[in-house]
Amino acid sequence: MRYELYYWPTIQGRGEYVRLVLEDAGADYADVARGKGGTAAMMKMIERNGPTPPFAPPFLKAGRLVIGQTANILHYLGPRHGLAPKAEAGRIWLHQLQLTVSDFVAEVHDTHHPIGVSLYYEDQKGPARKRTAEFWNERVPKYLGYFERLLAASGSAYITGRKATYVDLSLFQIVEGLRYAFPKRMQAFERNIPSLVALRDQVAIRPNIKAYLASERRIAFNKDGIFRHYKALDL
Amino acid sequence: MRYELYYWPTIQGRGEYVRLVLEDAGADYADVARGKGGTAAMMKMIERNGPTPPFAPPFLKAGRLVIGQTANILHYLGPRHGLAPKAEAGRIWLHQLQLTVSDFVAEVHDTHHPIGVSLYYEDQKGPARKRTAEFWNERVPKYLGYFERLLAASGSAYITGRKATYVDLSLFQIVEGLRYAFPKRMQAFERNIPSLVALRDQVAIRPNIKAYLASERRIAFNKDGIFRHYKALDL
Repeated sequence: MRYELYYWPTIQGRGEYVRLVLEDAGADYADVARGKGGTAAMMKMIERNGPTPPFAPPFLKAGRLVIGQTANILHYLGPRHGLAPKAEAGRIWLHQLQLTVSDFVAEVHDTHHPIGVSLYYEDQKGPARKRTAEFWNERVPKYLGYFERLLAASGSAYITGRKATYVDLSLFQIVEGLRYAFPKRMQAFERNIPSLVALRDQVAIRPNIKAYLASERRIAFNKDGIFRHYKALDL
Repeated sequence: MRYELYYWPTIQGRGEYVRLVLEDAGADYADVARGKGGTAAMMKMIERNGPTPPFAPPFLKAGRLVIGQTANILHYLGPRHGLAPKAEAGRIWLHQLQLTVSDFVAEVHDTHHPIGVSLYYEDQKGPARKRTAEFWNERVPKYLGYFERLLAASGSAYITGRKATYVDLSLFQIVEGLRYAFPKRMQAFERNIPSLVALRDQVAIRPNIKAYLASERRIAFNKDGIFRHYKALDL
C-alpha cells in the first residue's frame, strides 16, 4: 500500500514527525502537497465533507482510512512498521509519550506566537520575549528533564529499550529544532540532557534517516515552521 | 476492577473529561486525590520512577496499567464502556476528534495565561485580553464550526450517530466551560452552533450524567481551572 501524506509543502512543522517515521520505515509514500497541484488537493480533502474530514494537516491516507492528528498517525503507523510494540500496554505507553511531545511542540510554537496565529511575530515581539523566557526557565527543563530521566532509566540507546520507536524519532526532531531555533540557549542547556543528545546522535546515523536528511525530501528549517530562529528570542 | 483516577482535587480541569466518562459508564472508580492523603499519593506516583511514570495529571490506574494523557485515557476506556466503537477505524476517528478537543482546551487555557503558567493572570492581563480577542475571532469559530458541521452531518443527536461517545461528553464540557468563562461572548456565539447546543442538552439529561452533575462529585467551575471567568476577558 502506498501511503499519501498531506502536509504543508514548505515547512517541516508537525508533518515532520510523520515523515521521519515513513522514511525510517522505508515505507512507500507520496508527500502529496509537495507535488504539482498537491496543496489544492490537500485543501479539497479538508473542505469536502467526507466521512472523516481532518481538522488540519498533517493527515495520512492509508487505503480507505484518512487519519488526522500527528500522534494518532504515529499510533497507527508505529506497530505496522516496527516502530512501536504490537501489545496494547506498550502502545499506550508510547502514545502517552508522544502526546507529551505534542504538548511540548505546541509550546514551542507559542514562544513566537503567544498572542495568536493570525498575527505576525512582529506584532507580538514583547509577549514573545516573555513567553520564551518562561519557556526556557520552566517548560524546557520540565519536559526535557522528563524525557532525559526516562532515557537514563532505560539504560539503552532508545527510550523504551534497545529498539527505536517513533518517539525516539520525534525526540531527535525536538533536539534538532531547538538547536536551530535557539542555538545559544540550547548550547547552554545541553549539558543537562546528555542522554537526549546521545539519542539524537543515534537516530541521525540510522541508515534511512541519514539518507533522508541528506536528500531534498528533508525541508530545511525556516522562519515559517514551528521551530523558528529569531535573534531576539535567543539570548 | 476498580479504577483509580488521579487528578487535582479542587478543579475540573483536564480530569473532568475522564470523570464524565467514568460517571456516564457507571464505572467503579476512586477519585484518589480527593480523598485523605490523596494528593500526596498522586505526587508520589509522578515522582517515583515506575516503569511508566506520568508527566502530569490526569492519569488512570487500571489494574497494572498507569495511563496518562487525557485523550489516551479516553481511548482506553471508550471501547471498554460502550462509549467508543471497538473496530479500529472507528476508534481512530474518535481519537482524532478527541485530540482536536485537547488542542482546543490548551487554547482555552492560554486565553488567561498567554505568557506562562508560572505567572499570575494579573501579571499577564494585557496579553490575555489580546489573546482572548484572537481566540474568539479566529479559534472558536474554527474549532466549534468544525464540530458543528460534523454534528449537522451526522443527522443524529451525537457526533458519530445514534450512540453517545466520549467525544460527545467532552463537547458537553466545552459548551459548559465556555458558558461559565465567557457568558456574554458565548451567548452571542451560540446562534452559530445550534447542533452543539442541542448535543449539550442531550448529554445533560443522560441519567448518569444528570446524577453526577447534581452530586458533590462534580466540582464547581472556579478560578483555578482551565475555564476561568474574568470580567475583563468577557466583552
